[in-house]
Amino acid sequence: MLEASPQVGADSSGHTLKDVGTPCLILDLDRMDRNVARLRSRLDTLGVALRPHLKTTKSVDAARRVMTTAAGPATVSTLKEAERFAAAGVTDLTYAVGISPDKIERVLALRAKGVDLAVTLDTVEQARAVAEASRLAGDAIPALIEIDCDGHRSGVLPGDAAHLIAIARALEDGATLRGVLTHAGASYDARGDDALRACAEGERAAAVQAATILREAGFACPVVSVGSTPTAHFAQNLDGVTEVRAGVFVFFDLVMAGIGVCKIDDIAVSVLATVIGHQPEKGWILVDAGWMAMSRDRGTAKQAVDQGYGLVCDIDGQPLGDLILADANQEHGILKVRPGSASPLPDLPIGTRVRILPNHACATGAQHDSYHVVRGNDDRIEAVWPRFGGW
Amino acid sequence: MLEASPQVGADSSGHTLKDVGTPCLILDLDRMDRNVARLRSRLDTLGVALRPHLKTTKSVDAARRVMTTAAGPATVSTLKEAERFAAAGVTDLTYAVGISPDKIERVLALRAKGVDLAVTLDTVEQARAVAEASRLAGDAIPALIEIDCDGHRSGVLPGDAAHLIAIARALEDGATLRGVLTHAGASYDARGDDALRACAEGERAAAVQAATILREAGFACPVVSVGSTPTAHFAQNLDGVTEVRAGVFVFFDLVMAGIGVCKIDDIAVSVLATVIGHQPEKGWILVDAGWMAMSRDRGTAKQAVDQGYGLVCDIDGQPLGDLILADANQEHGILKVRPGSASPLPDLPIGTRVRILPNHACATGAQHDSYHVVRGNDDRIEAVWPRFGGW
Repeated sequence: MLEASPQVGADSSGHTLKDVGTPCLILDLDRMDRNVARLRSRLDTLGVALRPHLKTTKSVDAARRVMTTAAGPATVSTLKEAERFAAAGVTDLTYAVGISPDKIERVLALRAKGVDLAVTLDTVEQARAVAEASRLAGDAIPALIEIDCDGHRSGVLPGDAAHLIAIARALEDGATLRGVLTHAGASYDARGDDALRACAEGERAAAVQAATILREAGFACPVVSVGSTPTAHFAQNLDGVTEVRAGVFVFFDLVMAGIGVCKIDDIAVSVLATVIGHQPEKGWILVDAGWMAMSRDRGTAKQAVDQGYGLVCDIDGQPLGDLILADANQEHGILKVRPGSASPLPDLPIGTRVRILPNHACATGAQHDSYHVVRGNDDRIEAVWPRFGGW
Repeated sequence: MLEASPQVGADSSGHTLKDVGTPCLILDLDRMDRNVARLRSRLDTLGVALRPHLKTTKSVDAARRVMTTAAGPATVSTLKEAERFAAAGVTDLTYAVGISPDKIERVLALRAKGVDLAVTLDTVEQARAVAEASRLAGDAIPALIEIDCDGHRSGVLPGDAAHLIAIARALEDGATLRGVLTHAGASYDARGDDALRACAEGERAAAVQAATILREAGFACPVVSVGSTPTAHFAQNLDGVTEVRAGVFVFFDLVMAGIGVCKIDDIAVSVLATVIGHQPEKGWILVDAGWMAMSRDRGTAKQAVDQGYGLVCDIDGQPLGDLILADANQEHGILKVRPGSASPLPDLPIGTRVRILPNHACATGAQHDSYHVVRGNDDRIEAVWPRFGGW
């Protein structure tokens, strides 16, 4: 069932960081492997399973190094991800975005191929649609009820017994209640270890509370799923939780470093760029990576250290003082020393290559169709891993 | 030399806005054709050529409706655009981002196929590299010197005669000085018709001043190229200018509407999304279009009317009061009524379809691999036009 990986791009095989075309997305596999090992070790200690969110990598090659087995479990954010990873042999998947009725047909098509794909919902209306489609297809679709643990997005309040039970009843008229699922998105705004631990405990407690209500009402509710990269790294206790979903931990990024979940030198993805100009009287260096290569994500803007559109490193991945990608046009990036820093503007002649660490790995990755894989200080590109987008 | 358009996506042909998979990018061809006709008419009156910037559409099908002829002229922001459009028969191209020496080989390869591809630069160092490569290849690459008309990015100051002449001399040692090129990027921050007219005149005057210096020093400098969508629509006089580059005018977007260059109902692209949830106590409606579908561009944040991540319309493209995509996760969008508005929250049940107008058409387009083409109030998708990304 494994699909062959697409051909390595002919224009990159045999290349190095010095001569591959820029801008392009670089993945340091040593850092990625270290990040994955770190979270696995934590979750082993806490006694819960890892169901990694593959929305970060969108790459079969990367996913295989992140999942516990080649068949999963894993989480996806689009049905296209589900279809692509299923075609590569992943058979245990949760689609963690609220299902709309028109998407159920694609869910059933994947399930008919032997993929155990579960859906997510938080209304009776969705539960009825999933149950009806299940009855018509003769396939009880498993569904997780999304719980709102911190008010940041969707979900049922964890103590709203009437709503939880109404959804579960509507579901079980043809479909199956697999469990509850929550995501502590507000952890991205938490500052300090104590606040992060509190977020993690709040996430755990909300999911367990909702599961307990459902079980006391007679529903099995076998799965209690939580997850965000910050809470996964700060949870002290996951009693009652059966699995953790996290995504960006694989690569980490400047937002995660700003929160304190990782260090700068844990960040495994960067954008390789080339110097194309200077405006010396302004203290600017121009590069060929603008927002098209970095994304428009400015996630560090509200953190203590604003990294602009990215932190600039030399070709070996070492930060060049406080040089940041301060402003971006579509294909032009303007490098400046971060305001307030005494760090000097480095001398980077036309043609110099730099690596820019992203604010948000998921957003920057989405701007590229492949990863150029390197290891540590070796500048050889040892593989090109395709990545996909779309829905 | 025309390449066959890739197949229309099998899952979209015969579909309508009511049943195509969401999120997806919708292009209203009636609006696009009207936008193109409007700028063509203006430039005809002003007596200058249009060299449209194809970085906005990145689509062969769209480009053919925008260019004056199937062979160009046109502008590109990446060499991949140059290669793709050249393969589709476009032979008159300007690559309008500063050239790095390692990219010259790809420029020469396209020129060897008969494409009149010009490059852009603003340093003696680049000019020497282009001249040397031209000598070695026996092909005098035409180059435009970028002029900095408003301090927003790259370029030589228009009155810096010594620098202009040094670049021209270095160039003509093997390559060819085709002319000067400037882009009034600061026009995006101009407010009011008078300010926009002043930007346009500043852009014109800077380019003409630099060209005059070069001509007085003995260089032919045949091309005087200016262009941004705001200045192209507000220029009162383009004396001395030979061509206008503009890109986003084809689609327009909320940033352009905020500047006053277009009206909301000129915006030709939108993202079709489906309602997937409600948080009624917060006044939120959840849809399946988050930042992955819209991009992270928040270009209206600094304008008089902040449109969040986009202005929400019904399936026919009519705004739903002041409903905006106020916040976005990767695949979740949160719709709210704009703060301060008395507009009621519309009743949009699960499964309802909406169309969201983007802040920045170039950025939103880049998140999608095709345009679903409709016309006016007809909800049939009459074509699916592929678009490409990458470098």
